[in-house]
Amino acid sequence: MVKSISIGLLGLGTVGSGVVQIVERHQDKLMHQIGCPVEVTKIVVKNLDKKRDIDIDPAKLTTDPNEVIENPNIDIVVEVMGGIEETRNYVIKALRNKKHVVTANKDLMAVYGAELLQIAAENGCDLFFEASVAGGIPIIRSLVEGLASDRILKLMGIVNGTTNYILTKMTEEGRAYEEVLKEAQALGYAEADPTSDVEGLDAARKMAILATLGFSMLIDLDDVKVTGISNITEEDLEYCKRLGYTMKLIGIASRDEQDKVEVSVQPTLLPNSHPLASVNDVFNAVYVYGEAVGETMFYGPGAGRLPTATAVVSDVVEVMKNMRLGVNGNRFAAPQFTKQLKSDEEIYSKYFLRIHVKDQAGAFAAITSLFADYNVSFEKILQLPLKDSDLAEIVIITHQASKKAYDEIMKKLNSLDVVYEVKSSYRVEGEEVL
Amino acid sequence: MVKSISIGLLGLGTVGSGVVQIVERHQDKLMHQIGCPVEVTKIVVKNLDKKRDIDIDPAKLTTDPNEVIENPNIDIVVEVMGGIEETRNYVIKALRNKKHVVTANKDLMAVYGAELLQIAAENGCDLFFEASVAGGIPIIRSLVEGLASDRILKLMGIVNGTTNYILTKMTEEGRAYEEVLKEAQALGYAEADPTSDVEGLDAARKMAILATLGFSMLIDLDDVKVTGISNITEEDLEYCKRLGYTMKLIGIASRDEQDKVEVSVQPTLLPNSHPLASVNDVFNAVYVYGEAVGETMFYGPGAGRLPTATAVVSDVVEVMKNMRLGVNGNRFAAPQFTKQLKSDEEIYSKYFLRIHVKDQAGAFAAITSLFADYNVSFEKILQLPLKDSDLAEIVIITHQASKKAYDEIMKKLNSLDVVYEVKSSYRVEGEEVL
Ligand SMILES: NC(=O)c1ccc[n+]([C@@H]2O[C@H](COP(=O)([O-])OP(=O)(O)OC[C@H]3O[C@@H](n4cnc5c(N)ncnc54)[C@H](OP(=O)(O)O)[C@@H]3O)[C@@H](O)[C@H]2O)c1
Ligand SMILES: NC(=O)c1ccc[n+]([C@@H]2O[C@H](COP(=O)([O-])OP(=O)(O)OC[C@H]3O[C@@H](n4cnc5c(N)ncnc54)[C@H](OP(=O)(O)O)[C@@H]3O)[C@@H](O)[C@H]2O)c1
Repeated sequence: MVKSISIGLLGLGTVGSGVVQIVERHQDKLMHQIGCPVEVTKIVVKNLDKKRDIDIDPAKLTTDPNEVIENPNIDIVVEVMGGIEETRNYVIKALRNKKHVVTANKDLMAVYGAELLQIAAENGCDLFFEASVAGGIPIIRSLVEGLASDRILKLMGIVNGTTNYILTKMTEEGRAYEEVLKEAQALGYAEADPTSDVEGLDAARKMAILATLGFSMLIDLDDVKVTGISNITEEDLEYCKRLGYTMKLIGIASRDEQDKVEVSVQPTLLPNSHPLASVNDVFNAVYVYGEAVGETMFYGPGAGRLPTATAVVSDVVEVMKNMRLGVNGNRFAAPQFTKQLKSDEEIYSKYFLRIHVKDQAGAFAAITSLFADYNVSFEKILQLPLKDSDLAEIVIITHQASKKAYDEIMKKLNSLDVVYEVKSSYRVEGEEVL
Repeated sequence: MVKSISIGLLGLGTVGSGVVQIVERHQDKLMHQIGCPVEVTKIVVKNLDKKRDIDIDPAKLTTDPNEVIENPNIDIVVEVMGGIEETRNYVIKALRNKKHVVTANKDLMAVYGAELLQIAAENGCDLFFEASVAGGIPIIRSLVEGLASDRILKLMGIVNGTTNYILTKMTEEGRAYEEVLKEAQALGYAEADPTSDVEGLDAARKMAILATLGFSMLIDLDDVKVTGISNITEEDLEYCKRLGYTMKLIGIASRDEQDKVEVSVQPTLLPNSHPLASVNDVFNAVYVYGEAVGETMFYGPGAGRLPTATAVVSDVVEVMKNMRLGVNGNRFAAPQFTKQLKSDEEIYSKYFLRIHVKDQAGAFAAITSLFADYNVSFEKILQLPLKDSDLAEIVIITHQASKKAYDEIMKKLNSLDVVYEVKSSYRVEGEEVL
């Protein structure tokens, strides 16, 4: 007879209680898949007296992490408490004690993922983290297995639900950032301190994880250039619409022929026909461009109790299958390539630019000639007088330009006599795939 | 030292030559992932003298299938020749000779999948078939693993690129079915004999495979009710547009609380906001609704040499990993549930209906009262006089109705005095998820 498999949880919050719920409800199915019963036997929390919204035997709760990570009866540790430094120590201890670990923690994986995977391998343990990127979408599995024989050239992701919600509402309802943010906070779609979401840091962590897997190359969080959405105005979105684009906070990871890569997160204009352009509200999606497969996209909920818990439990199921077969610790191959980052000369894209200029003869010519000095030409131009002022507004979509050239143009633009103010500037992606 | 792994191909057409190409180009990556070299050593074709568009050592070609399936040096058989009966015999022989099999053949899997998986299990062999449904989308992997701990309630798929191309063109350009079909044939998007695509049979095969996996229940091809696209007119599509819908050939597999299922393929109206509505041209997509995860969608190319070959090679990589670990033959658990099909009383949906009626008082009342007899009410109605005739056109979108009630209404409708002709009738999906 097969013995039962015992799971210990670190954390019983949103995700943790979803995991308990799914494991209980799907006992039959899990039995069928892995051939033995599964039980959550011990759960670490901060506060034993807190009211929980699921029924849980109080004897299972503890505030002492060692009752899970040092517990000889526990096979798998599910880390759903969040945090970085303290959590890292627990995960390391658990792995050294030959426990398999499943985590939903993108902060931990983005910062210490490489170290932890290494320790897992040394101990013959699985360390799985599907839920850490885009909870409801099996994207890590698809990158590691489904697209295993392809060469991935570009990943583009809407990987933060909060910012996607805010941009969707701003776009659909023509409302201001601050107002929509407050509403998102009231609805529970944004945290009281929304910085990590709206400034793009959360998305950057996920892109570091995706790029590392997609390119088989160790990408650090520091390698990801980040711009958030807090400066986007209704005017910008109005122009997007008029020009046939949709603004999204997009994480981009691309590599060239020589395996040089760029990873960044920034507000980006996509043509309305791009598959990512119609991903709205809190939904997430990851678009993958592979040399052989071409365009694919994975779409689903990025967070939420049950979607995230589903991803955690899928990982747990795989760990259990591996246990039964005696083959844990084999999923992630060490990175194949050494990291080479593109320089600013090598990063190419189109740009959207909105400037206020003095409404006088020669203004436009001065701007055009500055761009021409750097060999950057225009794809679209709008020029409109500004009401109640002696300024005009110019909106430009450039052709491809190197980041270096564009940054230099931006610097000089501000010192041009005819330029009153550079209002905004965004990256434009998606017409040419690469 | 690890020996090298040897692959035998049955077939060197579109997909087969893509497989050879990918295995050659990605030697390094494959070595890195599995730790030993891989080689395609023998290839079965029909005609040795045919000009091939890839470079291939003529000594590798043969017309004798036994040189692959009885060859003691071959570890993995890749079946990319197509066909059903003869192919089934080869696959069975290969499995009995302890060779793992990877196939792209939906016809074979839809008809003999259960039998072949059984034989594979008995022989400790892997039988993988990712490429058989939606070539470029790792949907089978996602159903079997990523959503393993969820309860899937509904699958909706655009799983045939030819029909999606035709409907996209008809919709965008307002052109007639026959004309667009001819163009699709000229472009190579449709076969000379397009029956299997346009009558929905190809999609039905894929839905049988998906439903079997998603519901853990053996669904036969005969269980799938099928209607094709060949009767769709420009007028129907014009009304779709006007009412805010998009017409797609949709495969539906749904199950209720009691695990009763319905699997069907038919032209279906989707609200424009549905994620499947913007899947255009030859692209495929599978929408999955899980109890826990909610809505997810997988999007990508459904066919084509390299996308399909990528899926085949991913399967081959997984077989090789399993070989290295000594754990082949474990991926697919036998179905958990016995099949129970919904009766027509239990299949509910909305319907689109277009009728020509005599333009006289009481016509509309007669129709309304027929529907009312069956307790079916209307969500939307358009009535327009028809130019140069004494008829009027009525377009109705009903509320939910059972298939039984709706079919009876349709029968009686034709015998109503005021009805001149029932022009068309389609299913409507997607406003309520379930
Ligand atoms: N929520 C989502 O939708 C989502 C989606 C994807 C990924 N994630 C990730 O999943 C993880 C958990 O998120 P969550 O939303 O479930 O968090 P949460 O609701 O705040 O729950 C955290 C849980 O951990 C416990 N905990 C926190 N610090 C602890 C400590 N130092 N010692 C002992 N127990 C401690 C808390 O105990 P008490 O209950 O006693 O306070 C609580 O049960 C995070 O890494 C998050 O980034 C979440
Ligand atoms: N094409 C796609 O995009 C696609 C996508 C998904 C799935 N699939 C599936 O993949 C399979 C192969 O499709 P394909 O498009 O590659 O077909 P194909 O281009 O027609 O190639 C078939 C190959 O098999 C060989 N062959 C056929 N019958 C044979 C027999 N009786 N004995 C020996 N060799 C035989 C042919 O030999 P000769 O070269 O000598 O004629 C040819 O090389 C089919 O099951 C198809 O449904 C295809």
